[in-house]
Amino acid sequence: MDNARLHAAAKAVRDAGLDALLVGPSADLRYLIGYDAHAMERLTLLVLTADGEASLVVPELEAPAARASGAAELVELVVWTDTEDPIAVVHRLLTTAGRPGAVAVSDRLYSVFTLRLQAALAGTTFHPSGPLLGPLRIIKSPAEQAALRAAGAAIDAVHAAVPTLLRPGRTEAEVGRDISELILAEHDEVAFIIVGSGPNGASPHHAISDRVLQPGDAVVIDIGGVRDGYCSDMTRNYAVGALPEGYAELHAVLAEAQEAAVRAVAPGAVPAEIDRAARELITDAGYGDRFIHRTGHGIGIEVHEDPYIVATNTTPVAAGMAFSIEPGIYLPDRFGMRIEDIVLVTEDGVERVNHGPREVLVAG
Amino acid sequence: MDNARLHAAAKAVRDAGLDALLVGPSADLRYLIGYDAHAMERLTLLVLTADGEASLVVPELEAPAARASGAAELVELVVWTDTEDPIAVVHRLLTTAGRPGAVAVSDRLYSVFTLRLQAALAGTTFHPSGPLLGPLRIIKSPAEQAALRAAGAAIDAVHAAVPTLLRPGRTEAEVGRDISELILAEHDEVAFIIVGSGPNGASPHHAISDRVLQPGDAVVIDIGGVRDGYCSDMTRNYAVGALPEGYAELHAVLAEAQEAAVRAVAPGAVPAEIDRAARELITDAGYGDRFIHRTGHGIGIEVHEDPYIVATNTTPVAAGMAFSIEPGIYLPDRFGMRIEDIVLVTEDGVERVNHGPREVLVAG
Repeated sequence: MDNARLHAAAKAVRDAGLDALLVGPSADLRYLIGYDAHAMERLTLLVLTADGEASLVVPELEAPAARASGAAELVELVVWTDTEDPIAVVHRLLTTAGRPGAVAVSDRLYSVFTLRLQAALAGTTFHPSGPLLGPLRIIKSPAEQAALRAAGAAIDAVHAAVPTLLRPGRTEAEVGRDISELILAEHDEVAFIIVGSGPNGASPHHAISDRVLQPGDAVVIDIGGVRDGYCSDMTRNYAVGALPEGYAELHAVLAEAQEAAVRAVAPGAVPAEIDRAARELITDAGYGDRFIHRTGHGIGIEVHEDPYIVATNTTPVAAGMAFSIEPGIYLPDRFGMRIEDIVLVTEDGVERVNHGPREVLVAG
Repeated sequence: MDNARLHAAAKAVRDAGLDALLVGPSADLRYLIGYDAHAMERLTLLVLTADGEASLVVPELEAPAARASGAAELVELVVWTDTEDPIAVVHRLLTTAGRPGAVAVSDRLYSVFTLRLQAALAGTTFHPSGPLLGPLRIIKSPAEQAALRAAGAAIDAVHAAVPTLLRPGRTEAEVGRDISELILAEHDEVAFIIVGSGPNGASPHHAISDRVLQPGDAVVIDIGGVRDGYCSDMTRNYAVGALPEGYAELHAVLAEAQEAAVRAVAPGAVPAEIDRAARELITDAGYGDRFIHRTGHGIGIEVHEDPYIVATNTTPVAAGMAFSIEPGIYLPDRFGMRIEDIVLVTEDGVERVNHGPREVLVAG
């Protein structure tokens, strides 16, 4: 990892008229210096000044991990011990050239640290880091795009094996354990596993339960892992033995809606319009009120990151962005369905990262 | 779960002269309403006013999980959809009786939410919730003490089996996988596993590596799980085949220091003094600068919580508190050692929660 990302972040700090950027344990920290720090009660904080000075405030016990990450080649480690106050250490770093007028803090820094810093720096204004770091992280470099394609191929391979796992009498939890092994065979980590069988599929964020698969169940399988630091995320729909009544027609609508939204993706397209492309077809079929979430989310070193494909987002997408297209239809007490692929915005259109068949697969 | 904890929290809000308490996904939220929410970009927030009105602002996709947790019996769910702004929803709840003068936010709420709320409520002051919720969580009820004892017995049982796992030629990772199974046999979840063999033991927060155990290695094993919502955490020291040179004498000093700190625990004892009881003996033996962390941390529904047993903490402990006593000695490039038990402060002294033998066990 070179320090190009730190340079770009320091430039963003200057362009925003701020004096410093403070980044706690998060994907932002991994993005900037490659250190996967553990968020906890002992403060770890990257202090990046507008002129590019970068220090990593780190608890003594974590210093070996910080060094092992290679971060010490990019930033100066400032180690504090259990009897020191890390807020005072950060205060010292921030006030060497006088009290800063304005700083940005990373979105996921614990509030207790931000509030203590605000108390220590009365008069300094504090701002979210999203507007600074978002534009950097949202455009994926060719290497990042390759990593997302590889993660996409990995989760395609997992879905290809799912039909062999779905049999009446097995529980969602048993299926989930098998999927976990399949994900780990193709990735470095499991990110999440949703096995929503029968009525459980109607709750989009249902994870896994001890429900036993029944003949005639529809099953939503939404799974992802992390491979070389980049995330996969893909949803397909399966049925055990036979399709429930009314399911096939609805799934055909959903597949059309997903395809329409993917085709709406191109440089300059507005997320609200991409969302509408999917939502319109589902609404026309009479199920607009059963598509109860946004159409997609950005993906990269986090499963959910900018840009969000939602009716309220009017900032056009650009080449190098990566996000999910995942409309769904949810019928309470009956079943749910969702089709999800990751797409990359290319110079002249869109590239799908997932290629597995999108039709319902009848298993068991 | 009844609403006694919410009542106590509302009273703390009033006693602090604040208007409301805002609690995001965290152990604080689990403590107050029993809902184990997932921290993410979609805001979940408990809004508790000084007069005891409790609302849970929750994203539509998470509403089924919030309901399933039973939280809806304690609080009113206020559901927002992907096209709404949750900050506006919270703003509305907070301003029904005029703009609040001062609110507290939970320590681990993401800063982006606190900063957006500050922007929406100009003039309202924001404070950390620690001084409000800390005093509630720090005193464990008889049921919580029983849960900590049960977790202590569970991790005692795991340590009892550790000697059979340590043999030359095995890796830390292999030992760790076996320990993971043992923890799960006695707990609901694994919290963390440290297997620090040889020089790796000299880094207190080293977790696990592919290092192969060698004859003559000292091995620090620091492990914990979660059982019925309460955490275990216990460290013992082992040797493979034979003790390294100089190890036995140092371990005897450490055992004395740990015993001295445990004996210093009683209602009214000051954490700084408990810390000193251990540190003095290690310093007298010439290793004060090799004991590079605080003596302990509180434990309950989190592995690390108040009170911290550190030289800078002068607030006396009281009956019902639970914390670790875990002095350590770390010799870089050679080995480390740490002895850790959880203790409960009783009405007239101290009770250990872990009972496993504290001497070094030679295995393999």
